[in-house]
Amino acid sequence: MKVPSASPDFVLAIDFGGTKLDVATATLGGDALRSQRLDTDAAGGAEQAVERALAAARALRDATASDTGGRLVAAGAASPGIVLDDRILLAPNVPGWQDLPLATRIQDGLDLDPRQVVTETDVKAATLAEARWGALRDADPGVFLNVGTGLGAGIVVGGRVLAGANGAAGEIGYALRGVGDEHGASDGHAPLEEHAGGRALGERGSALLGAGALTAADVLERARGGGDPDAAALVADTLDELAVHVANLAVLLDPARIAVGGGMMNSAALVLGALRRRVAQAAPFPPEVVAARFVNDAALRGAIARAIDAHTTVPTTTAPTLIHRGGAAR
Amino acid sequence: MKVPSASPDFVLAIDFGGTKLDVATATLGGDALRSQRLDTDAAGGAEQAVERALAAARALRDATASDTGGRLVAAGAASPGIVLDDRILLAPNVPGWQDLPLATRIQDGLDLDPRQVVTETDVKAATLAEARWGALRDADPGVFLNVGTGLGAGIVVGGRVLAGANGAAGEIGYALRGVGDEHGASDGHAPLEEHAGGRALGERGSALLGAGALTAADVLERARGGGDPDAAALVADTLDELAVHVANLAVLLDPARIAVGGGMMNSAALVLGALRRRVAQAAPFPPEVVAARFVNDAALRGAIARAIDAHTTVPTTTAPTLIHRGGAAR
Repeated sequence: MKVPSASPDFVLAIDFGGTKLDVATATLGGDALRSQRLDTDAAGGAEQAVERALAAARALRDATASDTGGRLVAAGAASPGIVLDDRILLAPNVPGWQDLPLATRIQDGLDLDPRQVVTETDVKAATLAEARWGALRDADPGVFLNVGTGLGAGIVVGGRVLAGANGAAGEIGYALRGVGDEHGASDGHAPLEEHAGGRALGERGSALLGAGALTAADVLERARGGGDPDAAALVADTLDELAVHVANLAVLLDPARIAVGGGMMNSAALVLGALRRRVAQAAPFPPEVVAARFVNDAALRGAIARAIDAHTTVPTTTAPTLIHRGGAAR
Repeated sequence: MKVPSASPDFVLAIDFGGTKLDVATATLGGDALRSQRLDTDAAGGAEQAVERALAAARALRDATASDTGGRLVAAGAASPGIVLDDRILLAPNVPGWQDLPLATRIQDGLDLDPRQVVTETDVKAATLAEARWGALRDADPGVFLNVGTGLGAGIVVGGRVLAGANGAAGEIGYALRGVGDEHGASDGHAPLEEHAGGRALGERGSALLGAGALTAADVLERARGGGDPDAAALVADTLDELAVHVANLAVLLDPARIAVGGGMMNSAALVLGALRRRVAQAAPFPPEVVAARFVNDAALRGAIARAIDAHTTVPTTTAPTLIHRGGAAR
């Protein structure tokens, strides 16, 4: 599967999530070496999260160097939103995140060259991991669908993740549900996500079921058990709305396969059943709809893949124009 | 713009439309040489249309050879539907078309090698023409949108038109309008096209306005004049439904530009205005929405481009593995 690498050198990856931070080192062949998980403490702001992540990263770097005799050659970071040099767009849920120069902070914190540091939207990183090592291998086009607190997708064409003209390809939470929608990205709304995302499902479930604050997982659990017809109806309606959008995505892209990950896949049978029904109805050539392979660490693995690619493609004096193979376009 | 070619050799292209057939020859730089337009007479069946097209093609080939001293080196054909070796899929509106081995017929009719003949869905061919020579140059990703009798789109990524796993990428006529849709490709329906395509607009206009059989152009003309509020309301509703889907396409792909062609662009201000409004509402980074450059012959020009590419990439004994540059993947 993975190409063994003789080099003792290694890469480092950080996945900045809304509730947790994962840091890991890996070989140039993509095999994990050391890893650590921290709480993000998002309410505490971006600064403290980045500082703690970098402190953990330095410790892992030193321990891995000691283990292997190699050196850190590149680092990749996955984050919500669109990571630019001086700020992060479309990541409204992490306080302070929008003004963070993430790549620079990682360069400084790990003493790396700018060419040795890559950043990527978390869903696109997860897409790359599934394309290279997971459920989307050999799927061209392939689609990764994240159904969690938020909604997002990644599109793989020819082994590369489609970035879009502004890095925003796949941000399907912003899709309109229909002609009745008056809001949208232009006034700070994400209509599909605000209806069918995990947070929305929890909130609507709490209101409908009158049982205090429920999470999407709670609502899905009540629906799955079958004992709560109101929960079952709410979940069915919500997943069907999402499924219509996924079916239209399948019509537009004609993918070979759609791999589904994210928190709501704790109820995989419900989610996959709903998606498959609409995809089969609408797509002239219905793609497979399968569970993603990497349930807990897809974005982290994608950041590892991006770091490996960055190392592989850093120009040298003898080969100034290496071709970028695989990895998300920037 | 086009790279001048010193060679006197030339290519030939055929665009098989539902009402007309265009045949043309062009230089290896893409400049038109000779062309001819015939009626398709679709009701007469596919055979007679192909026979007449090939007869015209032979006459153009001989006249062009006489003009230039060159020889025919490749031929490209654009057609509705997905052109396979022995049949054409998703082209229900042309009797007999589904069983036509189009590439073989062109090879035999023009005495060409299989590697010298390429076929392509008409909308994808038009997309390639706009990407190479028209309104989508340097747009990455770029989207061509055809709003005519039917609805279709083409997606350009890195200068290539996305084929999809089955050649069906961009067939947006099959999109579902919402959770209320019970029909779809699985039972022979194309929900969005049956509501918002040109044929549907004409039929619904005829029923609503009680003025006999109207075409989409008739309905648009009545709406544009402003004298007929019923026509104006119907057109506004229809275009808004289409616009929601185009906006969601823009959300998913984050294109740099959307170029719009097809018959309904006779009312360009109405169409572009409706699309721009929803795209601006929904897309985090709204792309430009512009008129396509090639109003009357985009698919023909795309077939020329494909033929040029086929000639450029035919393997020779000295260079067995040339890279396919540009053109739609097959």
